[in-house]
Amino acid sequence: MRVSLLFSKTKKEIPSDNDSRNAELLIKAGYVNKLQAGVYSYLHLGNRVTQNISNIVREEMDAIGGSEISLPALQPKSLWDTTGRYDTVDVNFTTEGAGNMLHVLGSTHEEVITPLAKECVQSYKDLPVYPYQIQTKFRNESRAKSGIMRGREFLMKDLYSFHTDEEDLNTFYEKAIVAYNRVFDRLGISAQTYRTTALGGAFTKNYSDEFQTITPAGEDTTAFCPACRWAENVEVNESWKTGDSCPRCAQDITVAVSAEVGNIFKLGTKFSESFDLHYTTVEGKKELVQMGCYGIGISRVMGTIVEVLNDEKGIVWPESIAPYKYYLVSIGSDEEGEKLYDELKSRGVSVLYDDRRKVSPGQKFGDADLLGIPHRIVLSGKTLSV
Amino acid sequence: MRVSLLFSKTKKEIPSDNDSRNAELLIKAGYVNKLQAGVYSYLHLGNRVTQNISNIVREEMDAIGGSEISLPALQPKSLWDTTGRYDTVDVNFTTEGAGNMLHVLGSTHEEVITPLAKECVQSYKDLPVYPYQIQTKFRNESRAKSGIMRGREFLMKDLYSFHTDEEDLNTFYEKAIVAYNRVFDRLGISAQTYRTTALGGAFTKNYSDEFQTITPAGEDTTAFCPACRWAENVEVNESWKTGDSCPRCAQDITVAVSAEVGNIFKLGTKFSESFDLHYTTVEGKKELVQMGCYGIGISRVMGTIVEVLNDEKGIVWPESIAPYKYYLVSIGSDEEGEKLYDELKSRGVSVLYDDRRKVSPGQKFGDADLLGIPHRIVLSGKTLSV
Repeated sequence: MRVSLLFSKTKKEIPSDNDSRNAELLIKAGYVNKLQAGVYSYLHLGNRVTQNISNIVREEMDAIGGSEISLPALQPKSLWDTTGRYDTVDVNFTTEGAGNMLHVLGSTHEEVITPLAKECVQSYKDLPVYPYQIQTKFRNESRAKSGIMRGREFLMKDLYSFHTDEEDLNTFYEKAIVAYNRVFDRLGISAQTYRTTALGGAFTKNYSDEFQTITPAGEDTTAFCPACRWAENVEVNESWKTGDSCPRCAQDITVAVSAEVGNIFKLGTKFSESFDLHYTTVEGKKELVQMGCYGIGISRVMGTIVEVLNDEKGIVWPESIAPYKYYLVSIGSDEEGEKLYDELKSRGVSVLYDDRRKVSPGQKFGDADLLGIPHRIVLSGKTLSV
Repeated sequence: MRVSLLFSKTKKEIPSDNDSRNAELLIKAGYVNKLQAGVYSYLHLGNRVTQNISNIVREEMDAIGGSEISLPALQPKSLWDTTGRYDTVDVNFTTEGAGNMLHVLGSTHEEVITPLAKECVQSYKDLPVYPYQIQTKFRNESRAKSGIMRGREFLMKDLYSFHTDEEDLNTFYEKAIVAYNRVFDRLGISAQTYRTTALGGAFTKNYSDEFQTITPAGEDTTAFCPACRWAENVEVNESWKTGDSCPRCAQDITVAVSAEVGNIFKLGTKFSESFDLHYTTVEGKKELVQMGCYGIGISRVMGTIVEVLNDEKGIVWPESIAPYKYYLVSIGSDEEGEKLYDELKSRGVSVLYDDRRKVSPGQKFGDADLLGIPHRIVLSGKTLSV
C-alpha cells in the first residue's frame, strides 16, 4: 500500500475530548476516526488490524470445530419478549420499520441463534455444534468511554455451543479456554492477560470465566497472581488486596485495574427453555439442549493492545496483527523507491511504502514510529538497511 | 469442514412465503435462513460465499488503488440535515440513543465519507484517493422481496472517489468500469451482465452506469444488444422493444427484466458543496473536490448468481465463489473417509466432508447436487473417482 492512497493522515494534535491513550494514538496515527461518542470509522490501517485480529480468532475457533456464520442486526422485538430480556437489557437500541415492526439492534445474539438452532438440532446425532460470528454489535451505553474499548458500535466474535448434557458442555468449555489462551498468546498480550473467575451474571449461580488484561485503561478490578496465573474478579470477593496470599500457590497477589477482553459463560438451559429447544436422546426421550456462549471483543482487544503495547513515540504492534510488516522509505531517488516497492509487492511482501514527495525523511521516520509498523526498510543511495 | 458441524441442514420443503428461486434454493440448501421479511441469517456455507464474492471485489478494488476502510452504521442525523437528505431519502431506519441523539442507520455513506475526507484532503497533493468498504447497509424497504436480492439488511461494497477535476474523475470512472467488468467475469455472470446507461438520479442531469444482469428475478427492464453489448435501462427511453435495431451496431436488441448488481455515479460537487470539501490547487486557489461513487451489492450478487446459475437439482456455483471446491463422500468405510479428509485438509484442499453416519449415499449425493459444490470425491472400496 502507498501512503499517498491511505485516505488518512497522521496528526500532531487531536480534539481534547479523547481522554484515553488508545484513542489518542489511534486517531493521531490515522487508524480510526471518531464520528461521534462511542462510534468510530476504521480507516485503512485500523481496518487491517481488526481483520488481522479477526483472522487469528477465526483460525482458533475453526480449530475447535467452530462454524462461522453471520447473523442479522435487525432482530424482531418478539424474540426478546420470548426471553423476557426486552425489559431487562437496558443497552438496546430499537428502531421501527415498515409494517410497524419494532426491531432490536443486536446487542447480543442468543435471541436469534437459539430459535435458529431448532432448524438443525432435533436429535442427539445433531449435537454438539459450535456456530460463531464476527459481526457488529450495537449497545446504547449511557456513557461511551475509553476510546474504542467501550463503544456503542463495535466488532465482536461470539460463539455459541450446543450440547446434549452438562458434561459435554464442560468438556468444550475447557477446550474453549485453551483456544482463548492461544488467541491472546498470538495477539501478544498473554503476559498481561489472565483467565479470571467472575460472577455468572443474572441467570446463574455458577461462576463464569473472563479474560482480563491488566491495564489502567480497563473498567474492572482483578486480583491476580503473577506466579501461578490464578486470578479472580474482585466482584467475587471484594476484600482482596495487593500483598494477600494467593489461594492457589501462597505467593503474593496483586490487585489492579483490568480490561475484559473475553468472556465465557455456561448458559445452561436458560435459552433452550425460552425457545423450546429440545433434542431426542438415544432412548427416544426429549431433553433440553445445554448451551454456552463465548465472546471476544475484537475492537476492544485492539484498543487494549494499544494501551499495553506503546512507547513514547507511538504504537508498538505485535507482528501478528500489525497492518503491514514493513515500512519502506526511500531517502534517495523516488524511482529506486518505486522499483523496490513494485518488487516487494510482486513477491507478496506486506509493505507500506511512504511515497509522499516533498516530505522530509525525518517526518517519514516520525510517522513510522507513530504507526508502529514492526520493520523498516530505508533505501538510501547505495545502502539498503532493514 | 464437516457436514456434521455445519449448523445447517438441507430441507425438502420451505415456508410458502418464499416466492423467489434464490430464496427457495438457498434456504433449502441451508445457505441462509430467513429471520424476518428482508432479513437473513447467513449460515456457514452462505457466509463462505459472501466472503468469496467480497474477496474478488476487494482484489479488483485494490488493483485500481482502493483503500479498504469500514464506516459506522450509526450516523448522526445532523449530517443528513447538512445534505438535506434526511427529508428526502425515505428508506432510512432511525434510532434514538443516549443523550437524545437521533441516529440514521446507514443506508448509504456519503454523509460520513465526505466530512471524513476533510481530515486528509487539503491540497491537490492529497488527491486522488479511493476509499471503499464492504459493510452492512440498512434500508427500510416498504416491501422486501426477491429473497436476498432486495433485503432490509444487506452486504454492500461502496467505493467513493475524490478528484481535483472532472477530467480526473472521468479517467477513474472508466477504470472502475473495467474493474467492474473483471469482477462480474470472475463471478461467472459476465455473459448475462451488461454495462447499462441509466438516469443519474435526483441531483444530476448526467447519465450514470448500471450493471444489469438479465434475469426475470430482477426489478429493472433493460434494452440490450447481445451482439455488441450495448445496453440502456428503459427508464432512459421507454419506447425500446425487442427486435428494435441496436443504435450502435444495428443488430436486433432484446428488452428483458434484469437485476441491478452494480452502479456507478458521478456525484460531482453535490456532497463536497454540502460539507465544504475544498482543496488548494497548485496555484494556491481553493476548489471544490469532485466525487464519484461505485456500488456492488454483495448479497444481491449472490442471489442473482443463484437465479442465473441453477439446474433442476440445485445451485450450480462458479468455482470462484463456491463455498468449497470438493464434496467428499465415503460410501465404503468411515475410517477411510476420515483418513482422506484429514489428508486433503492438511494439504489445504477446500473440501466439505459429508461425515454423517446412517445417511444413505443417495441422500448425500442429492444434498451435494442441491448445494452445488463444483467437484465430488467419492471414496468407495478400492475406487477413487473425482
